[in-house]
Amino acid sequence: MLVLVNDQIKSREDVRIDLEDRGYQFGDGIYEVISVYNGQPFLMDQHMQRLERSARELMLDLPVSIGRLKEKVQALIEQEGRSTCSVYLQVTRGAAPRRHPFPTSATPVLTGYIMDSNPPRDLHAEGIRAITTDDIRWLRCDIKSLNLLGSVLAKQKAVEQGCQEAILHRSDTVTEGSSTNVFIVKNGTLYTHPANHLILHGITRHAAIQLAEKLNTNVKETPFKREDLYEADEVFVTGTSIEICPVTHVDNRAIGNGQPGDVTKQLQRAFYDLIVEETAMKAE
Amino acid sequence: MLVLVNDQIKSREDVRIDLEDRGYQFGDGIYEVISVYNGQPFLMDQHMQRLERSARELMLDLPVSIGRLKEKVQALIEQEGRSTCSVYLQVTRGAAPRRHPFPTSATPVLTGYIMDSNPPRDLHAEGIRAITTDDIRWLRCDIKSLNLLGSVLAKQKAVEQGCQEAILHRSDTVTEGSSTNVFIVKNGTLYTHPANHLILHGITRHAAIQLAEKLNTNVKETPFKREDLYEADEVFVTGTSIEICPVTHVDNRAIGNGQPGDVTKQLQRAFYDLIVEETAMKAE
Repeated sequence: MLVLVNDQIKSREDVRIDLEDRGYQFGDGIYEVISVYNGQPFLMDQHMQRLERSARELMLDLPVSIGRLKEKVQALIEQEGRSTCSVYLQVTRGAAPRRHPFPTSATPVLTGYIMDSNPPRDLHAEGIRAITTDDIRWLRCDIKSLNLLGSVLAKQKAVEQGCQEAILHRSDTVTEGSSTNVFIVKNGTLYTHPANHLILHGITRHAAIQLAEKLNTNVKETPFKREDLYEADEVFVTGTSIEICPVTHVDNRAIGNGQPGDVTKQLQRAFYDLIVEETAMKAE
Repeated sequence: MLVLVNDQIKSREDVRIDLEDRGYQFGDGIYEVISVYNGQPFLMDQHMQRLERSARELMLDLPVSIGRLKEKVQALIEQEGRSTCSVYLQVTRGAAPRRHPFPTSATPVLTGYIMDSNPPRDLHAEGIRAITTDDIRWLRCDIKSLNLLGSVLAKQKAVEQGCQEAILHRSDTVTEGSSTNVFIVKNGTLYTHPANHLILHGITRHAAIQLAEKLNTNVKETPFKREDLYEADEVFVTGTSIEICPVTHVDNRAIGNGQPGDVTKQLQRAFYDLIVEETAMKAE
């Protein structure tokens, strides 16, 4: 396996993560996951913009320019000879003696590598099952940080109940999934939580909204309740890895008729077309 | 520098942190910091009990028994030839391909090493200045986890304002400091936030409560407001590294007469006596 370290591509054996790296001791860092289709990183500019934003919010200096980083991501994909996969990128504040405040001396560390991944076409067709659980995460979920325990615990709970996703709610307001954004469809209108500090501003979420508007579907970025979720005509989640995926059951209750809905299917097709268009992937 | 890895003491150069260690990618792990006086780890049993509790809450298996770990901590201190210092211990869920749910195959990794530290006797005498800031952390602050960004950002804010600590509040209720617990004294009674999911159950906090009770000082573990902080007779913080330390100013307002108060000083002396007693340290 090859690993990008700042702007150098190395063998995994040559990569040294420092014991006192603040990523390891404080989760003091940020990340992105970029899907690759046909050897082309999909919506890379949007991911890079979000990486820059996360860095800015944590007062973290990226050790590599975005231009250089994009080149290196492309080089990593080529050198690994990959077509469909994803790229994981992470930037930590670097190594320093362990103290809470930002160190003056540390140099941020960027690492990146290719992960195996395949769009889950079976789940796209059949839909997934989700549970709901309390959103116990911090109040800056808009920063794509390495402090992911709240999401990990929620996802684990879902898996233990035979489900694929945990839909989070603060009091009774649905925020997002443990690793996805959540949409409901009611009477032909799409609803999703506004992109504020309580959710990650998903890139697939944004693409889904744009595609819906192109299809003349009304979209409301407004909070909704857990009850609205149960009573929705359709529910779907969006995310880089899962793309656009129907949720057919929430807390063991069927959504609508318990099958993927038409609005969701239409958006899935439009999203698939966007991938084909952007990455020159051969349509199936 | 020597590093404890599970139950082996190694040279730092021989320690390999995996790129896919869940500590590095999710902050999926826990830690403890133990003060050492006169070569003796102070209140080690309490720290070990808390480590076990944190592990249990995150469904994390400790890779070493507590008995063995205590032996190794002692060996680390001896081999490094240290008298006054602290021991940092961390356990992560180990390395696995990056996915949110707990991996089935990963083996938890314990690392530990000696950190330089000296009780800040100057701050103990003079007191510190603190700011207040919103508590934006997650809702399981009782788990001593590696998801520390909320604390890091608060502490950094304090430092940028020339202060040593940030006192956190949810709505208007004071929870704790960014790396300490917070007490106020009003009319001879001590108040501190109850040990629930919103604060770390500090070991020095617990010792301070026990010492206060021994001194016939009334202690109420009950939430108080930011206003109560400003209007307190005395404010102090507790923590493994800072021990018991007066706070003389909060948000640039003097607490009481702006000098360390008598109840605080009495507790500081009692805590110092406890250290001498427990570690056979020679009293100054």
